[in-house]
Amino acid sequence: MPRVSQDHLEARRHQILDGARVCFARYGYEGATVRRLEEATGLSRGAIFHHFRDKESLFLALAEDDAHRMADVVAREGLVQVMRDLLSTDGADWLGSRLELSRRLRTDPEFRARWAERSEQLTIATRQRLERQREAGNLRDDIDVAVLTSYLELVLEGLVSHLAMGLPADDLEPVLDLVESSVRRAGPKP
Amino acid sequence: MPRVSQDHLEARRHQILDGARVCFARYGYEGATVRRLEEATGLSRGAIFHHFRDKESLFLALAEDDAHRMADVVAREGLVQVMRDLLSTDGADWLGSRLELSRRLRTDPEFRARWAERSEQLTIATRQRLERQREAGNLRDDIDVAVLTSYLELVLEGLVSHLAMGLPADDLEPVLDLVESSVRRAGPKP
Repeated sequence: MPRVSQDHLEARRHQILDGARVCFARYGYEGATVRRLEEATGLSRGAIFHHFRDKESLFLALAEDDAHRMADVVAREGLVQVMRDLLSTDGADWLGSRLELSRRLRTDPEFRARWAERSEQLTIATRQRLERQREAGNLRDDIDVAVLTSYLELVLEGLVSHLAMGLPADDLEPVLDLVESSVRRAGPKP
Repeated sequence: MPRVSQDHLEARRHQILDGARVCFARYGYEGATVRRLEEATGLSRGAIFHHFRDKESLFLALAEDDAHRMADVVAREGLVQVMRDLLSTDGADWLGSRLELSRRLRTDPEFRARWAERSEQLTIATRQRLERQREAGNLRDDIDVAVLTSYLELVLEGLVSHLAMGLPADDLEPVLDLVESSVRRAGPKP
């Protein structure tokens, strides 16, 4: 067997995650059988489960990967930008896996416990971003940063749900403008 | 066979809807088998499908019933009150059926078309309420009523998703205060 480099392992891992994302979005968690995961990733079950212990671990890694990418955008541009990105791109795969996540959290308490340890990073990134904005004087100062964080997360969750249901999104830009303005300091724009 | 009165028919219909709501919330749409629907409603399949053509029609009637009840609250007290009610009561059954609705809308275009004809009433009730509030001078007047309506619906969808995932809700009262204040006219409170 050839010696497998770290880069190769990482590339393989991403290949699996990308295929699995499409597969979970299309068939749902239960419907994403091992055979379908093989088809979607172009890899054998042996290769897939060499990288991920089981289907649930693969699904968790996927959700964690999504959360990590969102946290990166939040740190640079804020959570409203994550929402704008969702509007401007065809985020169907990501949305599908996100809705499957919602559903499993609701129906499976054990899964919920496993996910709870990993779901904090988006909240932390959002709160830190808001704290920096407050220090810079851009944020309204009559409402706690924790409340503003929960507010933005709630709107994001609503947007995900809205898009995932295939509801029309062409009227949502001004809605996100309203969301953004309701966390900012009132007064004339710079 | 005894003659069945209109009242009796209505009562039976509600008995079926109440049982089915619990059943869909607990097992999901696919998992709510005819046998489980019989158990949950305490009625035979013959009785159930005398009132509803098939499982999908039953599910649609349930979603419509939920939307109707929400529209009543909206007309009297506004959409933020619907959200406050969700926080203050154990709305798990309603939430479950609502999330199943989201999921079917995402995965089943035919179902989406059937539901589209029936899903308007909550939007209409919300818009009419906001128009009355604007006439009364309670609403901010720099943003279109259609945008404010979409905004409130988006937050509601986020709240439903949040609660359905079993996430903590004890910090959400001030978030809803913020949502309410962001559609109202700025200035000193009466």
